[in-house]
Amino acid sequence: MTSRSFFTSLFEPRAIAFIGASNNPAKWGFNILHHLIRGQYAGRLYPINAQGGAWFGRKMFKSLAEVSKPLDLAVIVVPKEKVPDAIRECSRAGIAAAVVITAGFGETGPEGKILEQEVLRVARSCGVRIVGPNTMGIYSAYPSNLQAIMTSTQFKPGAVAVVSQSGNLGTSITDRLVRREIGLSRLVSSGNEADLTVEDYLDYLETDEKTKVICLYVEGVRQGHRFMETLRRISSVKPVILLKGGTGVVGAGAAMSHTGALAGSFAVFRAVCRQANIIMADTIDEMVDITGLFLSQPEIAGNRIGIVTQGGGLGVLSADLCEAVGLETPQLSDHIVAMLDAFLPPFWSRRNPVDLVAPGRVSMITDSTAALLAHADLDAIVLLGMGYMTSRATRWLASPVLPREAMAGPAQKMIEGEMELVDLIVRQIREFNKPIIPVVDVVGFDEPGDLNIVRRLDAQGVMAYSSPDQAIRALAKARKYYSRRQAENQSIRKGGT
Amino acid sequence: MTSRSFFTSLFEPRAIAFIGASNNPAKWGFNILHHLIRGQYAGRLYPINAQGGAWFGRKMFKSLAEVSKPLDLAVIVVPKEKVPDAIRECSRAGIAAAVVITAGFGETGPEGKILEQEVLRVARSCGVRIVGPNTMGIYSAYPSNLQAIMTSTQFKPGAVAVVSQSGNLGTSITDRLVRREIGLSRLVSSGNEADLTVEDYLDYLETDEKTKVICLYVEGVRQGHRFMETLRRISSVKPVILLKGGTGVVGAGAAMSHTGALAGSFAVFRAVCRQANIIMADTIDEMVDITGLFLSQPEIAGNRIGIVTQGGGLGVLSADLCEAVGLETPQLSDHIVAMLDAFLPPFWSRRNPVDLVAPGRVSMITDSTAALLAHADLDAIVLLGMGYMTSRATRWLASPVLPREAMAGPAQKMIEGEMELVDLIVRQIREFNKPIIPVVDVVGFDEPGDLNIVRRLDAQGVMAYSSPDQAIRALAKARKYYSRRQAENQSIRKGGT
Repeated sequence: MTSRSFFTSLFEPRAIAFIGASNNPAKWGFNILHHLIRGQYAGRLYPINAQGGAWFGRKMFKSLAEVSKPLDLAVIVVPKEKVPDAIRECSRAGIAAAVVITAGFGETGPEGKILEQEVLRVARSCGVRIVGPNTMGIYSAYPSNLQAIMTSTQFKPGAVAVVSQSGNLGTSITDRLVRREIGLSRLVSSGNEADLTVEDYLDYLETDEKTKVICLYVEGVRQGHRFMETLRRISSVKPVILLKGGTGVVGAGAAMSHTGALAGSFAVFRAVCRQANIIMADTIDEMVDITGLFLSQPEIAGNRIGIVTQGGGLGVLSADLCEAVGLETPQLSDHIVAMLDAFLPPFWSRRNPVDLVAPGRVSMITDSTAALLAHADLDAIVLLGMGYMTSRATRWLASPVLPREAMAGPAQKMIEGEMELVDLIVRQIREFNKPIIPVVDVVGFDEPGDLNIVRRLDAQGVMAYSSPDQAIRALAKARKYYSRRQAENQSIRKGGT
Repeated sequence: MTSRSFFTSLFEPRAIAFIGASNNPAKWGFNILHHLIRGQYAGRLYPINAQGGAWFGRKMFKSLAEVSKPLDLAVIVVPKEKVPDAIRECSRAGIAAAVVITAGFGETGPEGKILEQEVLRVARSCGVRIVGPNTMGIYSAYPSNLQAIMTSTQFKPGAVAVVSQSGNLGTSITDRLVRREIGLSRLVSSGNEADLTVEDYLDYLETDEKTKVICLYVEGVRQGHRFMETLRRISSVKPVILLKGGTGVVGAGAAMSHTGALAGSFAVFRAVCRQANIIMADTIDEMVDITGLFLSQPEIAGNRIGIVTQGGGLGVLSADLCEAVGLETPQLSDHIVAMLDAFLPPFWSRRNPVDLVAPGRVSMITDSTAALLAHADLDAIVLLGMGYMTSRATRWLASPVLPREAMAGPAQKMIEGEMELVDLIVRQIREFNKPIIPVVDVVGFDEPGDLNIVRRLDAQGVMAYSSPDQAIRALAKARKYYSRRQAENQSIRKGGT
């Protein structure tokens, strides 16, 4: 097992050598260095370029020898033939960890494979552990923003770790997380895994206190037993969401050519994942949907879902979907119906889904959710139709045929009403310690700045979903995870007495 | 069968009475009238309010009798008890069609049902046909923008007709279409269908030349045989995409309470739809994805798909997905590989998916797509990784640590390169008359204005997809439709000789 202190060098380095710095925007030696500097990495950073000079307002060192300061980590972007020598220099400079961005190794065929073996031999012989080669790079949010990666999107610190056997999938996943205001703890593109493998990174993440949720893209694993045992241990503590590439014949062939990984039988893989309580995501988007649910909502204690809607069709589709994914939408007792009757207009649906039919007041929505969570024995609520009020009000204000001065008051009232709704819902989630999943499926999703319901929810740590499907599918997978974890922990406790 | 001239009154009225106009922004009598006026409906519009006065810079008529001009259509938003009288007045004024927005009828229980029967009796006795009651309204793009509907989003004219048995589903569908710059021909929220039913609207759309694609949300139909026969006829000419509500036990119950429609067995319904070559959408988003494909891409002649990617993982997932949905990703012949070898860098994948691995030049992408479409016997291409260049360039320009003047040139070049790529791809779609489906899955999707790849594609009539899943699922469903239609037309031709 790779030592803890090595991972400290990799993810929490005090000083980095960037070997292959460039002032050519077409090169990774430019772009990755840019991302490091833009991110305000707080440790020492030594860009190295044989020509020397200055760039980014910084001195370029001509060689590692010229640095002559203690170093923890090297990022290597030199041409492939020069990688073995760069690693030897790292060793002489006392560097424990190298991220080898350079490509052209095992992924290109037999010749590249020979060079990769040479790199590995050199690394082993001189005690340097390597990420990659052919990696997109790494990101670490703690103790300071370390963005040593090709992705140009600026990451923000958070609690999600991403490990990806594909660089561009790493970008696809993290870009979506960034778009939904979800921060990262660590990100590793594992590349060809000549030395460090996905299993090694998982070992580290298991005990990484900054990481609460792990997203994993895997095409194939070489140490199947270790992989699954590690995931089984991790998932008893924090959720792991896995997306599998190479599940089909052609895809598996492409994966083989891509990272050299043998995909194996997907049916077997899936069965073993199930046993280890790994959450299988069907798509990149679903991975992000599930991640957001874990981060922004309390644990889901059971299968009983209440649907609160402002229109019939979305409620019908949501009930259908709950049934399809194994969630219940139980009927309401006479007692609860009477309780809701007291403040809802006579035309409400009197059943679950609770259809409020364009409620006139915010309190009708929040009183309903509160009554359902407090008294109806429900485990979570899917709240449909958020954004309607703001959407209408902004259209009033934008209309060329309405007198703006006459509309300002009513529009302001509508907008304030919906903003209050957002805040009350967030408060209820905390108060009842049960999930309320907001679905915002109108154009309002695109509103700018402070009129944006989605952003206002984000700012309070609650993820909105743009369709009931996304919300309910994520809810079902998260619930299944919690349910298995509860069962496991109980059986462990029983075994112990 | 409802007469053609009636539908002309409904969808192409020369004069409208708006009965129940209001100056209270909390009322539909205000909002729907606003949408009509904002949309610049070109016919004559007479708002009617018993108090009279002026609003929207227009005179409010005190009664229909005061109008004393020929009228085609009435929109009715008066309280439910006043609806029968309003319809009688319509009849006296020679109005053939009334859209009854007012709710509180059959959907609320037995008492409401009695009032609905009364409305229907009056309408029948005096020769007025009605949409609804309890309808969200209608929209018609031709001959002039007629937005008589609750939805506040401004629609634009186009070729998609939407018929929905749920008002809020109608909004969910059309909001998504608007967001993707897809225009509408007609939209009907069919409400309680006391008089006109979904089958009637379909009769009209069958021969409506403005409508190229039909989106249908249905909870239950009362004339099953007529419904399916109509759809069978329509789908031999234009695609119908259907989303079904009430497929589960609870959902069916909610549908029953919602529109009073009996859902019936979904398994039977699906089987019959399949026979009638109806495309079943699984989600609202998928409905929009499929619609966009029909509108923006040529017919897909076969199952053979080429995947062109700028990174391995997305290619692998895409190949997996093609296999899962019944599309092929055939291998490339030695001849094609040699052809691509001539201009691609040595590290390209040499297989389908064609992985270009961060190509340095736009021509590498467009030469690849052209070679594949011209020589590799493929029926369509999924083009992954669009937006990467623009996304990187805009991040250069936004960076606080890069000298803007030094970056302006390279950034401009990158952006122009990608815009050229967009234009060349659009040209190739026309030239080869085969689909090339662009997938833009980076933050670039959110770029403003003229840097937005998605908007630039929209402007040229090509829909971008934000994930390979969305693109490939839509492609598979569209292909299945074309394939069945081809088979049917062949069997009809054979039968005729």
